[in-house]
Amino acid sequence: MDAGERIERSLELAVGRADAEGGPKLLAAAIRHAVFPGGARVRPRLTLAVAQACGDEEPALADACAAAIELLHCASLAHDDLPCFDDAKTRRGLPSVHAVYGVPLALLAGDALIVMAFEALARAGAGSPRRLVPLMQAITKSVGAPSGIVAGQAWESEPNTVPEQYRCAKTGSLFVAATTCGALTSGEDPGPWRALGQRLGEAYQVADDLLDAVAQQTESDKPVGRDVALARPNAVTELGVTGAVERLQALIADAMNSIPKCRGESELRELVRLQALRLAPKRLMRSAA
Amino acid sequence: MDAGERIERSLELAVGRADAEGGPKLLAAAIRHAVFPGGARVRPRLTLAVAQACGDEEPALADACAAAIELLHCASLAHDDLPCFDDAKTRRGLPSVHAVYGVPLALLAGDALIVMAFEALARAGAGSPRRLVPLMQAITKSVGAPSGIVAGQAWESEPNTVPEQYRCAKTGSLFVAATTCGALTSGEDPGPWRALGQRLGEAYQVADDLLDAVAQQTESDKPVGRDVALARPNAVTELGVTGAVERLQALIADAMNSIPKCRGESELRELVRLQALRLAPKRLMRSAA
Repeated sequence: MDAGERIERSLELAVGRADAEGGPKLLAAAIRHAVFPGGARVRPRLTLAVAQACGDEEPALADACAAAIELLHCASLAHDDLPCFDDAKTRRGLPSVHAVYGVPLALLAGDALIVMAFEALARAGAGSPRRLVPLMQAITKSVGAPSGIVAGQAWESEPNTVPEQYRCAKTGSLFVAATTCGALTSGEDPGPWRALGQRLGEAYQVADDLLDAVAQQTESDKPVGRDVALARPNAVTELGVTGAVERLQALIADAMNSIPKCRGESELRELVRLQALRLAPKRLMRSAA
Repeated sequence: MDAGERIERSLELAVGRADAEGGPKLLAAAIRHAVFPGGARVRPRLTLAVAQACGDEEPALADACAAAIELLHCASLAHDDLPCFDDAKTRRGLPSVHAVYGVPLALLAGDALIVMAFEALARAGAGSPRRLVPLMQAITKSVGAPSGIVAGQAWESEPNTVPEQYRCAKTGSLFVAATTCGALTSGEDPGPWRALGQRLGEAYQVADDLLDAVAQQTESDKPVGRDVALARPNAVTELGVTGAVERLQALIADAMNSIPKCRGESELRELVRLQALRLAPKRLMRSAA
């Protein structure tokens, strides 16, 4: 089974429990809408890629971790799209969760997805409880306060945003969880895997800034120009388009170089290269190449 | 150290981490506002009471569980008070989280509190990882979809609410987690402790319905009459005031009778009796006695 199938199966297993007989049906539908169909599933693919590079010792645990990280990402999208934040009517080319189910159910779907992530972890962790603790610590750190994605979103409400901390928390943190959890599920030291997550997270954010600032609506499936409208820290505003493209290329190179020695090093390097190519607006990367 | 001190210390330990240097300060303040000063801390007191009745074998784990359950309760209050749900300007006699910090930070504080609950569990679970899995399963079940407090709140968005399921999910579920987790932290079978949580949760909901429907603003610190305005299932609407008081008394008696044989049975019985007395509007209980 390839990584994509493993991820979708693991997500279906988690989301399927919310559909159980007797629960509120609109909530179950809102949860499903937040998770399926997915985007590129970049973070869980990274978790599985690192787990495989480290030997994939506990595939069920790796699958659950990958699903947990994606569920937390989907939760953050459902909440970030709400009118009190981005007020985004579309997501991944479809109506956003609140556009279909209303604000109350979009908010609750996000809450339920956060809980579901830990439920999935607990279920898979039953077979290897000692690995569960460091996995939960890596994941909670990457999501909560003071430095996870929730804190990242909260920086937008601060009078003085620290751009570096904003970027690390808002995007980098969950990428770090993706790489370190991949290593942890195979019983490896997560430390050497932090840099890969950090660089890719930052690359992803710069690519997003490029898309947000200059791409045509047809290249990106989210509304453009929102960062400028919301006065968010933004690589294009700071460095210009050419500078941001150069930064993106440097980050991808750094990410590749940070990959620790491991069994599946060459395969992982190739996968990172391919994923990185998908990140940026093609037109820009070609013109800067 | 008494139960109240254990709970506050454990909550402070969890919340203190969100205050760490370098994080967004308004989010940290909003989180603190959602947790301190607390209400009666009914649920964590119940967790510790059951843990003690079962021998309190792992006090640090029991404290973390109690804190996790209270953090999840505080998260639900911060979210339920938002304009898209109850639009409550006050909570526990003070401005609600969004009334002070605005909707975005109140929403994010709730998200961060959910994550913080699992962070607290993971930290304490490091010493006894095998107990962590069933604790997480009990807690995630009581909070998420299809039958936890998030599902309970979601029933209010369904066209056809099932009153029994609404009540069990909205209030009963976290009380069940409180009693079963208390037993689990001491290595006891949680099954026999479910009924106590269910009865007390239902009693608490009926007491809340009584307060909501008939108490004066001075007796309750939340706005009155909201259930009727929001067309929620309500024991007073269904049974009348006298009927609801009788139901409350029957539930408390059932709760007392459900307490399993255990080392600290008599102390627990007394504690439940005292907590139950605090639940209902005193004037009504006297008139029905």
